[in-house]
Amino acid sequence: MKLDKLPEDLDAGFDGSGYRQLMRHQALGVSVVATGELGARVGLTATSVASLSDSPPKILVCVGRATQAHNVVAERGVFSVNFLASEHQELAARFAGQRGVDGEERFRGANWTTLVTGAPVLADALSSIDCRLLESHTFTTHSIFIGRVVGGTSRADGEPLIYFRNGYRALARS
Amino acid sequence: MKLDKLPEDLDAGFDGSGYRQLMRHQALGVSVVATGELGARVGLTATSVASLSDSPPKILVCVGRATQAHNVVAERGVFSVNFLASEHQELAARFAGQRGVDGEERFRGANWTTLVTGAPVLADALSSIDCRLLESHTFTTHSIFIGRVVGGTSRADGEPLIYFRNGYRALARS
Repeated sequence: MKLDKLPEDLDAGFDGSGYRQLMRHQALGVSVVATGELGARVGLTATSVASLSDSPPKILVCVGRATQAHNVVAERGVFSVNFLASEHQELAARFAGQRGVDGEERFRGANWTTLVTGAPVLADALSSIDCRLLESHTFTTHSIFIGRVVGGTSRADGEPLIYFRNGYRALARS
Repeated sequence: MKLDKLPEDLDAGFDGSGYRQLMRHQALGVSVVATGELGARVGLTATSVASLSDSPPKILVCVGRATQAHNVVAERGVFSVNFLASEHQELAARFAGQRGVDGEERFRGANWTTLVTGAPVLADALSSIDCRLLESHTFTTHSIFIGRVVGGTSRADGEPLIYFRNGYRALARS
């Protein structure tokens, strides 16, 4: 290994701007993370969603600390992850804050239901994953929420909505 | 929220088999996580890679504790994340253990180099991200490794290799 410099020297050579340029090239399925009770639901479009283990089933999401959803997930201790289909591009834009609406308004015009925990789940997501919060780790701007998966639903059909190089894309036919 | 049951009761109703069925529907860019010195390099195909924050630039990867790469990342304290292009399907299969080769043998036939930390980076990845390990969190079967990004490279062209519903896929033309 080449770590003959001090770690702090390495860090100084690379910043957020360079990082964002590199991460444009990660292709990502788009999902919405949602929580809260009917009348006070909150959610956001998320791309930092990763499977942690399958026995026991655990999933993690990275959520910005400045978002509405961050504090509601922490307080309520439940959340859902909803993997979006190609027809959900407008919903993705709304939950990403690109339509200037927040809270319950983001949920209008789509069919949301609940499963085990009571967190809102999108009825026609490719799959929806219902979690209770196991633990959270807080960093400068974001927290990692780790959920124990306690339920979920999926569709047999449908193709995913993908985000790549700052734009929405679809898969080629297989 | 509906959490009127004890958390343990909720957990008992859902297992790894159901979870794997749900997670088939998450579309993922495929990457290879790599580490180790020339002659003793190790790596694996990873789909649990998530951006944690961009200032400071941090990325996380979930790596199975039973893999060769797990212990080398922990010991060496450096790793790379390489986002694969559509032409890297055979390389993805090799690093996923589907060709029966381990260690250095997985690196043969592709062009690997190093950047800042000395971790191996794939020269023609869509982008490669060079990290020093900041912290790790160990769970039953996997660890979360959080890296401070200290360097990287990217290509202007190329399309991503995607994994969706247990198969490799490509993007439709935009």
